[in-house]
Amino acid sequence: MSVHVAILGATGYTGAELIRLISRHPHLSIRRLGAHSQAGKAAGEVLPGLSGDLAAMPLLPADKSLSGDIDMVFTALPHGAAAACVKAALDAGKKVVDLSADFRHQDKDVYAEAYGQPHPHPELLSQAVFGLTEYARDKLKGASLVANPGCYPTATLLPLLPLLKANVVDADNIIVDAKSGASGAGRSAKTDLLYCEANENVRAYGLPRHRHTWEMEEWACTFSGQKAKIRFVPHILPMTRGMLATLHLKGDNVAAWHGILSDQYASEPFVHVLPEGKLPQTSGVCGSNCCHIGISVTGSDEAVVISCLDNLLKGAAGQAVQNTNVMYGWEETLSLDTIACWP
Amino acid sequence: MSVHVAILGATGYTGAELIRLISRHPHLSIRRLGAHSQAGKAAGEVLPGLSGDLAAMPLLPADKSLSGDIDMVFTALPHGAAAACVKAALDAGKKVVDLSADFRHQDKDVYAEAYGQPHPHPELLSQAVFGLTEYARDKLKGASLVANPGCYPTATLLPLLPLLKANVVDADNIIVDAKSGASGAGRSAKTDLLYCEANENVRAYGLPRHRHTWEMEEWACTFSGQKAKIRFVPHILPMTRGMLATLHLKGDNVAAWHGILSDQYASEPFVHVLPEGKLPQTSGVCGSNCCHIGISVTGSDEAVVISCLDNLLKGAAGQAVQNTNVMYGWEETLSLDTIACWP
Amino acid sequence: MSVHVAILGATGYTGAELIRLISRHPHLSIRRLGAHSQAGKAAGEVLPGLSGDLAAMPLLPADKSLSGDIDMVFTALPHGAAAACVKAALDAGKKVVDLSADFRHQDKDVYAEAYGQPHPHPELLSQAVFGLTEYARDKLKGASLVANPGCYPTATLLPLLPLLKANVVDADNIIVDAKSGASGAGRSAKTDLLYCEANENVRAYGLPRHRHTWEMEEWACTFSGQKAKIRFVPHILPMTRGMLATLHLKGDNVAAWHGILSDQYASEPFVHVLPEGKLPQTSGVCGSNCCHIGISVTGSDEAVVISCLDNLLKGAAGQAVQNTNVMYGWEETLSLDTIACWP
Amino acid sequence: MSVHVAILGATGYTGAELIRLISRHPHLSIRRLGAHSQAGKAAGEVLPGLSGDLAAMPLLPADKSLSGDIDMVFTALPHGAAAACVKAALDAGKKVVDLSADFRHQDKDVYAEAYGQPHPHPELLSQAVFGLTEYARDKLKGASLVANPGCYPTATLLPLLPLLKANVVDADNIIVDAKSGASGAGRSAKTDLLYCEANENVRAYGLPRHRHTWEMEEWACTFSGQKAKIRFVPHILPMTRGMLATLHLKGDNVAAWHGILSDQYASEPFVHVLPEGKLPQTSGVCGSNCCHIGISVTGSDEAVVISCLDNLLKGAAGQAVQNTNVMYGWEETLSLDTIACWP
Repeated sequence: MSVHVAILGATGYTGAELIRLISRHPHLSIRRLGAHSQAGKAAGEVLPGLSGDLAAMPLLPADKSLSGDIDMVFTALPHGAAAACVKAALDAGKKVVDLSADFRHQDKDVYAEAYGQPHPHPELLSQAVFGLTEYARDKLKGASLVANPGCYPTATLLPLLPLLKANVVDADNIIVDAKSGASGAGRSAKTDLLYCEANENVRAYGLPRHRHTWEMEEWACTFSGQKAKIRFVPHILPMTRGMLATLHLKGDNVAAWHGILSDQYASEPFVHVLPEGKLPQTSGVCGSNCCHIGISVTGSDEAVVISCLDNLLKGAAGQAVQNTNVMYGWEETLSLDTIACWP
Repeated sequence: MSVHVAILGATGYTGAELIRLISRHPHLSIRRLGAHSQAGKAAGEVLPGLSGDLAAMPLLPADKSLSGDIDMVFTALPHGAAAACVKAALDAGKKVVDLSADFRHQDKDVYAEAYGQPHPHPELLSQAVFGLTEYARDKLKGASLVANPGCYPTATLLPLLPLLKANVVDADNIIVDAKSGASGAGRSAKTDLLYCEANENVRAYGLPRHRHTWEMEEWACTFSGQKAKIRFVPHILPMTRGMLATLHLKGDNVAAWHGILSDQYASEPFVHVLPEGKLPQTSGVCGSNCCHIGISVTGSDEAVVISCLDNLLKGAAGQAVQNTNVMYGWEETLSLDTIACWP
Repeated sequence: MSVHVAILGATGYTGAELIRLISRHPHLSIRRLGAHSQAGKAAGEVLPGLSGDLAAMPLLPADKSLSGDIDMVFTALPHGAAAACVKAALDAGKKVVDLSADFRHQDKDVYAEAYGQPHPHPELLSQAVFGLTEYARDKLKGASLVANPGCYPTATLLPLLPLLKANVVDADNIIVDAKSGASGAGRSAKTDLLYCEANENVRAYGLPRHRHTWEMEEWACTFSGQKAKIRFVPHILPMTRGMLATLHLKGDNVAAWHGILSDQYASEPFVHVLPEGKLPQTSGVCGSNCCHIGISVTGSDEAVVISCLDNLLKGAAGQAVQNTNVMYGWEETLSLDTIACWP
Repeated sequence: MSVHVAILGATGYTGAELIRLISRHPHLSIRRLGAHSQAGKAAGEVLPGLSGDLAAMPLLPADKSLSGDIDMVFTALPHGAAAACVKAALDAGKKVVDLSADFRHQDKDVYAEAYGQPHPHPELLSQAVFGLTEYARDKLKGASLVANPGCYPTATLLPLLPLLKANVVDADNIIVDAKSGASGAGRSAKTDLLYCEANENVRAYGLPRHRHTWEMEEWACTFSGQKAKIRFVPHILPMTRGMLATLHLKGDNVAAWHGILSDQYASEPFVHVLPEGKLPQTSGVCGSNCCHIGISVTGSDEAVVISCLDNLLKGAAGQAVQNTNVMYGWEETLSLDTIACWP
């Protein structure tokens, strides 16, 4: 059995990772590559890592990307633009994993506030499953539309949810100071993303309130039942991949937090809590679909919890494939690595 | 007039910057380079950026570094080791700027707690001037021993002190999430500082309580009169130079904070508060002795204040030269750059 | 069926890649990890990319690494040290893929000249198969000892051999200017490999004659029948992985060279000749086992031929696994990626 | 005395370095900053390294950049566009240092061949002085138009000219394999200059014949009297600054080459020949105006000669200021550093 796949937005960084992962997946087969602005070229002209048949595949405009015998669509498009493609795909009976932000919110008004524009297809919101895999397996099975989470919300919610659920963290006083590799900013030719501007440089951005803050707060509440206030400050670092989220937390019973986190993720293939006193680093996860979590208790009522993931994998394409594996009832780790490509 | 200078610890990264700055200083003249473990070599064998006479200068053992016609000593040595050299230099009537941590604390017990060892020469602590230049000019004039501040305390105190002094910040609830280039970790041959380990990687370290936390809290209190509790988490980034400190603050009257900071530093040559809404980046200060400060008001009682500096310059060698200029009554900017070497 | 594997030198960069590749191989199973200087620790304490059972595996001293039910050994040890382990393994009836330089030469005198020391076990040289896979498949099948080629010889021979065999290149006048990521220098804690020394820096090394020159010249001759004189200059670049070899060549019939190269590698899974006029880049191969080759004809009797590979994969661990697949008669691409992990 | 300066193309990387150097020059004073596409903004909005008065200076369109009391103009504009501004400045009686390629050739036909377009103002070619400072001091004194050399020609000619003049190098057989930091490609927002494409990557470009080849060959001949054939292959590396040129040379009397080079540059402030057997590295020159040269004799009739410089300084803005110092008869090192900003 082979599920025929179209990838829309195939020539961005997330698209490139989708191609890599799906091309080695035993049950998925790439049949269409959509890349509107590059349509007419072969994939290998735009993506340096391809060769052979994949390099020769034509890049298609949006309207040709879904034609024919496609079973499933991955949309790696800008928010706003993704929704129309998602609708077209669903209308044509295809399953969709959407990597944009368009279906990550349950309420169209929250989307409008976070993204500064009305939602293009609010009627579809209710059927979307928010694909933070470890918390969504039941709903993912058989889902037709998966909203793949943002990289920052994934890096924040994985360490935060167990503590919120255990009711040990001060939910009004959560600070997330996040550091991301530059690939999270995408492949647009902007001056501030040039090598010479991003190299040997670090800066915060997205203040006073980055769009992913709404997503974090919404799903922290939905998954834990607790209303959380998150002060979120992202930074861009001089590295291609990798994301580290430093959670400055206050709460009760901090000595128990390591155990709470360890218990939650004890049998997870991709989420690992490091031994007490050991802190994660992004190079320990890049190239894999893993999230590593560490904790340091810094006072009687406070702790620093740190998570790391590869923003293009567990933060995007990897989690999308993980979700696909769950949707179809396949082994969850298919085509995904659990060991970092280190160094 | 020319002040004759010895640099001890000349072959580390801070030592190299001291050589560069002092060699182009109109009133300072390098006469001795001390580098105990490299003694016998010429400076140019160990430091790639030198040429000519400086490259040919011999590296001396500690006991030969202070002999003869030396007026002034810069000690860029590990804490613990610096104190004996400082004492020897003071006893011989030389002025000292010490870049180690040995004289940054007013109380020997605080030093012992922070550094895990008794202070080697507590009798000298009272004569040391803590050289956060902008707050110490009066005491620096004519001082014989200057304790040059740590890079993290400099990056934290410059944005924090005006707010503490204005009594607008919640002093019990200060979080400093700092990001440093790898040069801050020094030039020792350790596996975790290898290129392939530090490149494409970010990690926190120094938890649960980094040594610089004591220094920050002590001088926050001494300079502002307010007791501050600082939760400090440093990270090491894949870049050589640069430090960015993200201060997550709560307090009152946040709309006035930009004005408070701007007023404090309006006439400073090296500390610049960016226009409202603009955030600093480390590439904007590296190579210069500047500290750039930006602020984003994120709520009615909270703000993010961000500072950037070059950890080897305003965070070490640059501030040491700035302090020297003040000690001798010279123009404060001599031999220091105010424009970053960008890109 | 599962072949039980020991990896000696498991905590170096090549060792880490062997662990990653072998752990996902369907027919290989890691049973021992040798790491003499780290013996007693768990693998996860030394290698940040591991988790779960692999992270918990004990690191063994050399004498314990081969005991018990081991079928096959990968030796990723320094030259000189590898030979004794190889001999012990062969004596115990195990198959060996040696990633050191100890068995890459057919003549012990050449080894002695290149490595400045007598060969520890010259009696084994004749049974070693030089594992440049694309040119050694027949001999690899059933081999008990494979000498895995160096990264520079692999990057040089793959583009050079077809031209030498076709007798179109001036064999007395071959210049190879190579550029390597820092991981090629290994994981020793040396000052010149520190992040701050290697970052933002490029330098040549290994002059006047790097050790790999002997290896290149020997196998150029053995495989092509032509005696070649190679002027080889390697450089180390500020990147972790990747190797690019620029071959400055003179010869005849240069217009035909692209066809000669394309024909040679038309059906290879891992060696790809780019379309005429297109030049390869290392980011197009890193993370994969591929070698990309491009050519630019620069005159009537001269051309520049450029090859790229991942020094830790096709230049080391990847080719070792490729050779293993051939030795056992498995599909040659098992556990190896053909698409780069880009960006 | 203060010479009033306009900088055209002030917001590129070379423009930024011109601002830094000129702003600290004792005899030069910046009065106009031209940046056509950014006109209307303040300099500090586009250049992160500025503060104070310089940050507040308005960026002017081309036609306003030369008005008023300007004595001298630096043009850091694209080739083709520079010529008209140069002519306007000369017509208005101002001195010009042009950092574009427009006046680097003595023959308009060579320019047309190298740049693929007719020269806009061939009548001005004869008055331009090619400013490879060490070979042009006599002509520079009192010159009104200086053509500042390209970075690759500077890095190639400095090590090559003494050998050509001594008639010891085989002039028909010169190979220059050059490696440049990404800042050499300028500040245009192009996809292949994005951080994530240039990081962890190396590639050759500009083949089969890069434009600077004409410039190298022309001035090799003009300065040495020998016609040289240069096979030139440039590469772009993952670093911001720095250029290393590896010259693969054949010739006679190679044992004497180190002496020939050392003698030539013995009293130069910015060109240093390293001791025999020592090879230069780019980090040893970046931030300074120096060129370091090393040599390794690799055979009886062959040697590798390697030069390093900072492409934005000795390769561009630094040499422009050096030339200015000579033009006006000032001390040649004014405002230029001789020690690298290392690490």
